[in-house]
Amino acid sequence: MGKMTNGTEDLDNLIALMAKLPGLGPRSARRAVLHLIKKRSLVLLPLADAMQQVGATVRECLNCGNVCTADICDICSADKRATGQIAVVEDVADLWAMERAQVFKGRYHVLGGTLSALDAIGPDELRIPKLIDRIKTENVTEVILALGATIDGQTTAHYIADQLPGITVTSLAQGVPVGGELDYLDDGTITAALNARKAL
Amino acid sequence: MGKMTNGTEDLDNLIALMAKLPGLGPRSARRAVLHLIKKRSLVLLPLADAMQQVGATVRECLNCGNVCTADICDICSADKRATGQIAVVEDVADLWAMERAQVFKGRYHVLGGTLSALDAIGPDELRIPKLIDRIKTENVTEVILALGATIDGQTTAHYIADQLPGITVTSLAQGVPVGGELDYLDDGTITAALNARKAL
Repeated sequence: MGKMTNGTEDLDNLIALMAKLPGLGPRSARRAVLHLIKKRSLVLLPLADAMQQVGATVRECLNCGNVCTADICDICSADKRATGQIAVVEDVADLWAMERAQVFKGRYHVLGGTLSALDAIGPDELRIPKLIDRIKTENVTEVILALGATIDGQTTAHYIADQLPGITVTSLAQGVPVGGELDYLDDGTITAALNARKAL
Repeated sequence: MGKMTNGTEDLDNLIALMAKLPGLGPRSARRAVLHLIKKRSLVLLPLADAMQQVGATVRECLNCGNVCTADICDICSADKRATGQIAVVEDVADLWAMERAQVFKGRYHVLGGTLSALDAIGPDELRIPKLIDRIKTENVTEVILALGATIDGQTTAHYIADQLPGITVTSLAQGVPVGGELDYLDDGTITAALNARKAL
């Protein structure tokens, strides 16, 4: 990105690294760095410490792929959450989104992506073999496929369902989002919502 | 902001700190942190180091207010830049913008803001007394007021011009920005550009 400041190599380096974050470009990275310099003891130093800390402690749960600080994450090791339900999600961000909704009480399995012929991502690149292992060893009664309603997400869902004979496999309902106005919805969503209509 | 993940305090702390950066909110901070975790050795650890480094070394130039790693910044200490011209800017971001344009060869003076009656910012809150000192001690022939074309910026420009009798004080030209289309310009800019028209 070349030199962006007036000769302070440390600053240029910090800006270049910040610009690699999703949602930040060179301009907003410069703005963020100036903010950091101004709030040195309030933000800059605590942020550096927090990053060191996370870098030193955070890793993937060996069981489900969630981020955690131990071999097995809090969710996998909580007895309360041994409900026999496993929600299969694409990414840790999706797990966090489900946890924020506070509605699912079972355990998770983070695939780490979706099957994709274009990107040459097959079942072994994802955490699918581990999912099949877990179904044999944990007392699983239902696998909930909480994958995105995209082509790759749905392909992955069908592939996983095929691998799990004898287990109840469900997927999230499709329909009108809460607060959604029909006028702004795409044809596919309206079709799905109409086909899955419920008696009142 | 409450708990956003699934129980990792370090992560919650990091997300909360990231969300304080300008341009990032809670959602984009979560996304950035997940990215950091995935790119641990490539981005997370170097970023933590860069922040420590900047936190430990960067400070304000005692002469002009630029950010630097010594008492006096590279620009103030460069003999080549003793042209007798001082460009007065509001903020370090403005200094960086002028340096990127690579057109100004003199030195800078960073005010650290603009005069503002509403926010109770007077001349002593800014670096104005230091500017007056510099004009007495450095061999200054021209002060270029490179302040924003806002009401506060222009008030500050007039105040500074009043404080510097006997010195040539100039300000940046106002007019059509390069690449600007008349259709999209506001009335004030068109008026300024017309009044300052030049013979071809």
